[in-house]
Amino acid sequence: MHTIPTDTAQPTQATRIPIEAPLPDKLVNFSGDGEPKSPRTMLQTLIEFEEEVGFEADSYSLGGNVQRIEEKFAEMLGMEAAVFMPTGTLANHLAVRKLCGDKPRAIVQEQSHLYQDSGDCVSRLSNINLVPLAKDRAHFTVEELKRVVEQSEEGRVLTPVGALMIESPVRRQDGKVVPFGEMQAITDYCRERGIGTHLDGARLYMMSGATGISAKTYASLFDTVYVSLYKYFGAPFGSVLVGTSQFCDGLYHDRRMFGGGLASANFAAALALKGVEGFEERFNTAIKSAITLFDKLNTLGGIHVGRFENGSNIFPMDLSRDLDLDKFVKMLREQSVSVSLGNPDQRRSTLRVNTTILRQDVETLFATFRAALEGSRL
Amino acid sequence: MHTIPTDTAQPTQATRIPIEAPLPDKLVNFSGDGEPKSPRTMLQTLIEFEEEVGFEADSYSLGGNVQRIEEKFAEMLGMEAAVFMPTGTLANHLAVRKLCGDKPRAIVQEQSHLYQDSGDCVSRLSNINLVPLAKDRAHFTVEELKRVVEQSEEGRVLTPVGALMIESPVRRQDGKVVPFGEMQAITDYCRERGIGTHLDGARLYMMSGATGISAKTYASLFDTVYVSLYKYFGAPFGSVLVGTSQFCDGLYHDRRMFGGGLASANFAAALALKGVEGFEERFNTAIKSAITLFDKLNTLGGIHVGRFENGSNIFPMDLSRDLDLDKFVKMLREQSVSVSLGNPDQRRSTLRVNTTILRQDVETLFATFRAALEGSRL
Amino acid sequence: MHTIPTDTAQPTQATRIPIEAPLPDKLVNFSGDGEPKSPRTMLQTLIEFEEEVGFEADSYSLGGNVQRIEEKFAEMLGMEAAVFMPTGTLANHLAVRKLCGDKPRAIVQEQSHLYQDSGDCVSRLSNINLVPLAKDRAHFTVEELKRVVEQSEEGRVLTPVGALMIESPVRRQDGKVVPFGEMQAITDYCRERGIGTHLDGARLYMMSGATGISAKTYASLFDTVYVSLYKYFGAPFGSVLVGTSQFCDGLYHDRRMFGGGLASANFAAALALKGVEGFEERFNTAIKSAITLFDKLNTLGGIHVGRFENGSNIFPMDLSRDLDLDKFVKMLREQSVSVSLGNPDQRRSTLRVNTTILRQDVETLFATFRAALEGSRL
Amino acid sequence: MHTIPTDTAQPTQATRIPIEAPLPDKLVNFSGDGEPKSPRTMLQTLIEFEEEVGFEADSYSLGGNVQRIEEKFAEMLGMEAAVFMPTGTLANHLAVRKLCGDKPRAIVQEQSHLYQDSGDCVSRLSNINLVPLAKDRAHFTVEELKRVVEQSEEGRVLTPVGALMIESPVRRQDGKVVPFGEMQAITDYCRERGIGTHLDGARLYMMSGATGISAKTYASLFDTVYVSLYKYFGAPFGSVLVGTSQFCDGLYHDRRMFGGGLASANFAAALALKGVEGFEERFNTAIKSAITLFDKLNTLGGIHVGRFENGSNIFPMDLSRDLDLDKFVKMLREQSVSVSLGNPDQRRSTLRVNTTILRQDVETLFATFRAALEGSRL
Repeated sequence: MHTIPTDTAQPTQATRIPIEAPLPDKLVNFSGDGEPKSPRTMLQTLIEFEEEVGFEADSYSLGGNVQRIEEKFAEMLGMEAAVFMPTGTLANHLAVRKLCGDKPRAIVQEQSHLYQDSGDCVSRLSNINLVPLAKDRAHFTVEELKRVVEQSEEGRVLTPVGALMIESPVRRQDGKVVPFGEMQAITDYCRERGIGTHLDGARLYMMSGATGISAKTYASLFDTVYVSLYKYFGAPFGSVLVGTSQFCDGLYHDRRMFGGGLASANFAAALALKGVEGFEERFNTAIKSAITLFDKLNTLGGIHVGRFENGSNIFPMDLSRDLDLDKFVKMLREQSVSVSLGNPDQRRSTLRVNTTILRQDVETLFATFRAALEGSRL
Repeated sequence: MHTIPTDTAQPTQATRIPIEAPLPDKLVNFSGDGEPKSPRTMLQTLIEFEEEVGFEADSYSLGGNVQRIEEKFAEMLGMEAAVFMPTGTLANHLAVRKLCGDKPRAIVQEQSHLYQDSGDCVSRLSNINLVPLAKDRAHFTVEELKRVVEQSEEGRVLTPVGALMIESPVRRQDGKVVPFGEMQAITDYCRERGIGTHLDGARLYMMSGATGISAKTYASLFDTVYVSLYKYFGAPFGSVLVGTSQFCDGLYHDRRMFGGGLASANFAAALALKGVEGFEERFNTAIKSAITLFDKLNTLGGIHVGRFENGSNIFPMDLSRDLDLDKFVKMLREQSVSVSLGNPDQRRSTLRVNTTILRQDVETLFATFRAALEGSRL
Repeated sequence: MHTIPTDTAQPTQATRIPIEAPLPDKLVNFSGDGEPKSPRTMLQTLIEFEEEVGFEADSYSLGGNVQRIEEKFAEMLGMEAAVFMPTGTLANHLAVRKLCGDKPRAIVQEQSHLYQDSGDCVSRLSNINLVPLAKDRAHFTVEELKRVVEQSEEGRVLTPVGALMIESPVRRQDGKVVPFGEMQAITDYCRERGIGTHLDGARLYMMSGATGISAKTYASLFDTVYVSLYKYFGAPFGSVLVGTSQFCDGLYHDRRMFGGGLASANFAAALALKGVEGFEERFNTAIKSAITLFDKLNTLGGIHVGRFENGSNIFPMDLSRDLDLDKFVKMLREQSVSVSLGNPDQRRSTLRVNTTILRQDVETLFATFRAALEGSRL
Repeated sequence: MHTIPTDTAQPTQATRIPIEAPLPDKLVNFSGDGEPKSPRTMLQTLIEFEEEVGFEADSYSLGGNVQRIEEKFAEMLGMEAAVFMPTGTLANHLAVRKLCGDKPRAIVQEQSHLYQDSGDCVSRLSNINLVPLAKDRAHFTVEELKRVVEQSEEGRVLTPVGALMIESPVRRQDGKVVPFGEMQAITDYCRERGIGTHLDGARLYMMSGATGISAKTYASLFDTVYVSLYKYFGAPFGSVLVGTSQFCDGLYHDRRMFGGGLASANFAAALALKGVEGFEERFNTAIKSAITLFDKLNTLGGIHVGRFENGSNIFPMDLSRDLDLDKFVKMLREQSVSVSLGNPDQRRSTLRVNTTILRQDVETLFATFRAALEGSRL
């Protein structure tokens, strides 16, 4: 071929895009799971990426930096292979679809994102019956699972279960996690029965930070795991689905069939590659700082930061009736601390811990909260 | 809500990202439909966009710059509304899916991208029978259509046709276009019969440039039209599906169900907004320049640039046996002209016209070709 | 057309098929919902049908006697129209499929036949998410329903509920029925919300017999109702789905698409036409006789026939430990009374009431039970 | 279990259903593939069946006489196993569905019943793309097949072909058959490529009668074969799908999921068991008689019975303009010969050969035709 590869063509004269380093933003944000992103901050990170690492083009989401981020997550989670997906919806869907194979029944939490917030994609597009367990609760037990699986195989027409998905932390249940022991019992049982297992680990690293059990250890229980790239790894969108080589092999055909084969996913991959660097450690430190801070806050009057049973990075906060909440929030904001209280009359709200907590030290944050409490007392 | 919107949070201290303007690239590239893109060139364009226009965040591909590009295309094509889609595969699929409604049979060209290159997504995920017409040809006639529609309604079980799609230009048929008169007859017939019509206009602007019929006029024949954002408008990925307000209303639910609701599509939208500025005019000029050049080349010996019947921006080129093709290509390349010949023994190849032809004037290009022909004669 | 219609061609010389009337069978059978059928008894009934009524041929389950049975049930249930279906599985499936329209989510009892015993047909073939309520219970309440419907419309992706099905009596729950007031509240709510309603009334007439509320009154609550033809109406197979004319119109196309358009369903239709004659009255009498008998039995020692809360034609029977069950069953059988006890050590079993109870009078049956109890005491 | 099996319960006193043998019907019917059936004739056959063979009950189309007819066809076609299906639509559908497995693309004739007359069931319910070949022709060649299969595997997204179906004789093409050599080449190619093969042999025995190649030999080329029970074997409905044990194993679950698990299919099975006795021989004789008759007719003036290329039991008949067709038909009918001419002005029509031709001898038929020709000459 006498040709020039189109996507890697470089400008004939190299150009520089120098940037002044911004002062580190001091804002500690107690809502969201990740650091706030703006197009500007993302552009800066991409320029850094180009200078430090350099872009490698992908072709329809195959190869290049996209392959790098796949390899990175396969390695981080101790799995053989990985496939980039444009959304978590598609990652969860394709995992359940492929694990089911010719047994189109799958078990999920009734409160899971896939059951409640994905437009019934699995039944509408893949003809799979998602059987919801643990109505209105964070998780089901292995005993509940067994009863349903056995029932499935007793019906007048055989409807064997092909796959099981666990979402943890559970977004609709204040980020509560499924206890590791239960997960282990569930996945052991599935392995025995030939039922494929998938972890919706959109916020897997929040769970690890909270329980101290590594992401890799969690992943080792499952056949496949999905991790989000945009919730806290800094990409504008995207996710990674990890599993065995056999599982991942050829899965890009399904991605394309679903209309998810982006012509180029270079920027998302590059931003995620930057975002994962040192993230696990940073986030673990963030959780520790938060707990130290919250314990100290609980020695003050007017505020109590509690713990959810099996909680992850979300903590319930109660504020006493004698505080002017508008003033409280405003005083915190002036010291670059952002909290989200919902309805002003509502004294119970939540704090979400993310790595922005590392932008200020615990003592400073403590002082800021103390001053705000004092200053807003009615 | 006492909170700070996450996605629009700005660094506390404004930073500048100055860039030196690159020398305009002189490379005229006779393959591909658009200008070569590199991450670097895209980053530069995004920085310009920020400075000139400014980013507005979208939330899961709703609002912000994404909405701007939707509005832009609705206006350009004279339609009421538009929806951003991550890929053309999804745009075509959702158009056919929704137009079919409860009549799950649709008619397409056998050579269309949707029939040949989309993994049978329409039958696999939307349970629609795509009936392929015009086997191995660029298009079918209204007479062929009528026969099939009538047959559909005569079968022992009713299987009415819900939608029809025309791809034009046809990628698998050297970019040949469906003649306007035939399109008109086909869409008139469909309107009478209550059959929805969709135009796969991935390369709609190539067709307009070649036929002189405006994109808006083409669009006026159809219920819905899809246009690619990455093939020649400069986005890394993405497409826009335009139609009536009623058609587009709520379609983002389907986009999300299919796993195509990107958390943010800001960069793709911004790049496309830059890319469409003045494109139609630029491309029309490019086609005119190309034809002038090709006519002149045909006065020389050793080369002939022909025309496909109903061709668009692809032209067949024949080179005589007495040329050293490697040398010919190399000499062109030294003057920043790139052609792609396929197999070195193959004397017939194609030239694809895109806006890079505007980077050099016709006289210069003519001189370059003449010199290369002379210098490579055996 | 110079032709002879094939299916109605008669032998050129009429033949007679005289039959001796059998002695009426005295067997009272306390298992099953209908009278035992044998090919022989069905043949005799068909011969009677021919002589009394005469066959009219159907063509692929359209017209003829098949149409007669459709009209018969439409009339009996006070609905506009009806469609014959080869199985109850298909009747329930097509009802839910069509009622859902473009809102592919439907609510059912977790214990329903459609959810547990139909091979997940609705999600596998019609891409509808069946949401199961009332886990391990006979029915759900209107309050539970409301919560789920509202949740469905709040998810991040819209997933509106298109249909609701109630099975009553519930086969997997000892034939318990959904209380009429609850049904009314549920169907009223659905009507307000534009949710279609279907009654799986396979055993509708068992329910009416038990509650004294007419089948027509039950049917009036729902958009569509399915009734079985073979469980107690004497057909070898088949069912009828009743609804509005608009609903039933063209539904035979779907029946055929699913492979349920039998070339001729004449015999099934004829047997059902015979079976429905006077059935409702006969069955109501049967239930009354049964209750009289059971009340009398409860005055004896060693046996207690109870009532299920919201029960229909199934009654729990407890036998005391001092009975030789094998002997008890044998003695009953010798007097043409058949009971089914399951495991011989199990003292609790059920009696199912059907019209065979009318073959003997209550006094005779009572005497038979009393003798069997006395004769089998250890 | 202390119980009496319901479906096999016999009347307590045996009854006799004597019947007078009818005079054999003399009507020779040149339309249709089988002998005319009436409820009366079917009842008589069922009574004979009971007396000669005896009924064995099936439970939801499993076991009993249904199993007998499955075994009978497996043996007749030299295959390991068979499954009864209520319709041919379901038999063809489930064959293609299961053969496809996880490769949801199948190749069929564009003129096939499954493509034209089954409501697009395969794409609508099984998400399989049926690729139609041989537009408006009876069959495709192995070369056409190869090109399409190879194209399928070259598309941008992999869409491998899982199954191929051949219908022969082709109902929509005057009963023309696919030549045996072509079938062999096609099925050999499929075997090499791992593509499952299915024969829609609704009228397989018509084809065998015409070509002299046994049904078993045809079946040996394919993985699965469907044969109709009602077109010429005397059942009111039903079909049999034969294949390997592995293929047939568990297929009844799919039959039930589709709503095709009839509660009892006893009568259909019994009638087919009677119908197959000696059928193959009888039909071969019928074809031979027909050809003898037609050759003799062609020696007369005013009539010509031709042959379709690759024809089966349908023959084109031309009648000269100087005949009064109404009179011709009437005179034949008076001698118990029925022909169907369509439009009275149309001189070309068809004769369909079936076993009714055996009811009169060739000489008699010839004389009848000769007299009718003479008597109707204008």
